Amino acid sequence: MPRISISVLLFCATLFAQKPADLIVSAGTVVTMDAQYRVIPNGAVAIRGGRILAAGPKVEIEQSYRAKSRIGRPDAILLPGLVNAHTHAAMSLLRGLADDVNLDTWLRQYIFPAEARNVDREFVRWGTRLAMLEMLLGGTTTYTDMYYFEDEVAEVTRQAGMRGVLGQTVIGFPAPDFKTPESALAAAEQFILKWKNDPLVTPAVAPHAVYTNSPGTLRAAAQMADKHGVPFLIHVSETKPEDLPVHEKYNQTATRLLAANHAIARRSVFAHGVWITPEDRPLLVSHRVGVVHCPSSNMKLGSGQMPLAEFLKLGIHAGLGPDGPAGSNNDFDMFEEMDLAAKLAKVNGGDLNAVTARTVLEMATIGGARSLQMDKEIGSIEPGKRADLITVSTLAPHATPAHDPYSLLVYSLKAADVQDVVVEGRTIVRARTPLTLNAAEILKKAREIRAKVDASIRK
Amino acid sequence: MPRISISVLLFCATLFAQKPADLIVSAGTVVTMDAQYRVIPNGAVAIRGGRILAAGPKVEIEQSYRAKSRIGRPDAILLPGLVNAHTHAAMSLLRGLADDVNLDTWLRQYIFPAEARNVDREFVRWGTRLAMLEMLLGGTTTYTDMYYFEDEVAEVTRQAGMRGVLGQTVIGFPAPDFKTPESALAAAEQFILKWKNDPLVTPAVAPHAVYTNSPGTLRAAAQMADKHGVPFLIHVSETKPEDLPVHEKYNQTATRLLAANHAIARRSVFAHGVWITPEDRPLLVSHRVGVVHCPSSNMKLGSGQMPLAEFLKLGIHAGLGPDGPAGSNNDFDMFEEMDLAAKLAKVNGGDLNAVTARTVLEMATIGGARSLQMDKEIGSIEPGKRADLITVSTLAPHATPAHDPYSLLVYSLKAADVQDVVVEGRTIVRARTPLTLNAAEILKKAREIRAKVDASIRK
Repeated sequence: MPRISISVLLFCATLFAQKPADLIVSAGTVVTMDAQYRVIPNGAVAIRGGRILAAGPKVEIEQSYRAKSRIGRPDAILLPGLVNAHTHAAMSLLRGLADDVNLDTWLRQYIFPAEARNVDREFVRWGTRLAMLEMLLGGTTTYTDMYYFEDEVAEVTRQAGMRGVLGQTVIGFPAPDFKTPESALAAAEQFILKWKNDPLVTPAVAPHAVYTNSPGTLRAAAQMADKHGVPFLIHVSETKPEDLPVHEKYNQTATRLLAANHAIARRSVFAHGVWITPEDRPLLVSHRVGVVHCPSSNMKLGSGQMPLAEFLKLGIHAGLGPDGPAGSNNDFDMFEEMDLAAKLAKVNGGDLNAVTARTVLEMATIGGARSLQMDKEIGSIEPGKRADLITVSTLAPHATPAHDPYSLLVYSLKAADVQDVVVEGRTIVRARTPLTLNAAEILKKAREIRAKVDASIRK
Repeated sequence: MPRISISVLLFCATLFAQKPADLIVSAGTVVTMDAQYRVIPNGAVAIRGGRILAAGPKVEIEQSYRAKSRIGRPDAILLPGLVNAHTHAAMSLLRGLADDVNLDTWLRQYIFPAEARNVDREFVRWGTRLAMLEMLLGGTTTYTDMYYFEDEVAEVTRQAGMRGVLGQTVIGFPAPDFKTPESALAAAEQFILKWKNDPLVTPAVAPHAVYTNSPGTLRAAAQMADKHGVPFLIHVSETKPEDLPVHEKYNQTATRLLAANHAIARRSVFAHGVWITPEDRPLLVSHRVGVVHCPSSNMKLGSGQMPLAEFLKLGIHAGLGPDGPAGSNNDFDMFEEMDLAAKLAKVNGGDLNAVTARTVLEMATIGGARSLQMDKEIGSIEPGKRADLITVSTLAPHATPAHDPYSLLVYSLKAADVQDVVVEGRTIVRARTPLTLNAAEILKKAREIRAKVDASIRK
């Protein structure tokens, strides 16, 4: 009897010493992507109030924390949620609209006309939901959007519990939402004011590109971004032909034109950057510009190859993005982008170790966060950070036998291996079941809207 | 009463008019890959005795045939099983052994030593089973192997009910199975004699490469292949450095050396072919050589880029292969190879329509069969052909909304979307469940063997 009492007392003491947590996620391997690239075998992460309390060996975490709920995946890797640093979510509804044509043909003959006829608030609502459904099931927890009706995008993103960096497009011709760049800029500011303190949504201003906006518009957008401390998202030098008119008109490169016009904001994110000249690279460093590599899109549209290894060598912060799915890629698969980025960097031979599996996993997590200047909040598993996590099963034949986790994640595992997705401490996918999005309804709506799009094109 | 009797009579008459079938597979879309690229909405395929009886609209097939069993997938695409035209199956056990290094370092520092210490009959048995498990779940119905102990490979392939073109390796240094090229050649002939009439296994002789074999060995292997009418599988000009010693020693290209030595057999299949010179391309046409494009491997090992569009323009028969998974790729995913082949062909701009989605799907089906000179038997859905078929679900968010089936299959759908796999008329995967392979046992064995491999490397 006395012995039992002591045991009970000790047990109670342990219980009282335990700190409360909302959720503990444990896995066979925890890949933290912290500054030491710590990998924890049989590890766990304790979460409270949307933030990470601690990460460490499972036995220690279980001793120290008392959790309301648990996810346990002994046969999975637990890692930071993936960061899609450049995309056009609602274009999911235009998936595969035109393949095997170059960017200019694709944009002017197919996309812009289809968008002019079809893109409205309803289109954006369901297209974004379809995209989020795919992204979440593929382990993406943060996505960076450049599209229209971005306040609608913000609303459905918040509803889904996903994290978004959402850029209201500003473009020098009548767009589906605003007919002039001035009205788009004014709306962008309202949008920023409305959302700038949201825990999930980071609003941004997104001038489409240098060749589709005036220097004045670009400067105004950059000033607005800086005034509110939000990101400035823009396509820069994606293709060689798009840079030609800029050169002819201004006798400058796109990057230099932006710099000369004080149109590089403090949180600038340049998508693609394929044709940024070696002479302009120091500008990316001095302005702390984030660059987003989009290997699928650049290959598929024949745009060219971003000099990734050279950018990384200079310390330029590079993220990874699948771009839009309407022909420049056809899906939002960050696992494929990682695999492709690592392989594309080697296609011309040279130093095969310049872009390793770990490097591209970094681009898809903490590196992507750095490109967005959100690395203090997301991108790695560290105490104090927002709890954006995913588990990826390693049980599939294509992931067997187990080996280096970076190699596994980049070269073998697939989006379909993702099991659970936690954003801001909330489980929004569990065992591949989306908990905040109605998959059947979204797929049905997507088919209905696409039927209308196809009919509009045939007209 | 009389009315009922007439109905019953009519019903019986229809029943008697129906021809017997073993299996009818139906799907929302049937992509035949026949000479007319026929695509059948709501189609079906009737199968008997391992061969295709008919393909057509589902209502017609159901009227004409009375099947013992049925697979119905209204939300899937039914297409010919994928043909992996170059791989090293048992290397699955060495998955991810060394990443981000070039072919020469990879082979000489990692693979050859690991193989010398570990590859035996047991290794090959379980490694091949692991590979087949992954390949079948990813829609591959035929694979083309170059490895050791190929009689063991044949045995487990037959057991699994998969189709294999299995090449016994001949190499100019002591190999895990045979210590001299002469003994390997003799064994290859025995192997060919044993299996040459098997319905599933096509035996072949596989001299590793020009730089690892003498001209005499290469000629003997080619003569053996021609004597028995079997394929002659060889790596040709995969990397620039491997061709250098050939040039120095013989003052010829590898292709020309093979031709000059009568070492191009009638069913020659050249893997990689990255550095085959423009001057040598006509030799591929005149000798009807099949070439196998391995985009993942060539990119990952920095080997270079095969001039696919140029080869196709000349009418060279090109297949697709994932190569081995030990560092040159890390999986056997034909969907990724298709996606990559289409994108890699566009990376330098040029004619983005030269290698379309349909072109690469062709390479993965009937084109791959042509490269192996098996196109009269497999590679398309046509009456009389062997019934090798797969269904691929289009229900995933990444495949929604539906559009062109070629675009869907190449740019959006994944190996994980494969549902059913039929080989030689036999269903060997049903709703993603393998019916002929014991997945749990294979994965367990794979882990055990890999632990030994890792220990042998640390020694």
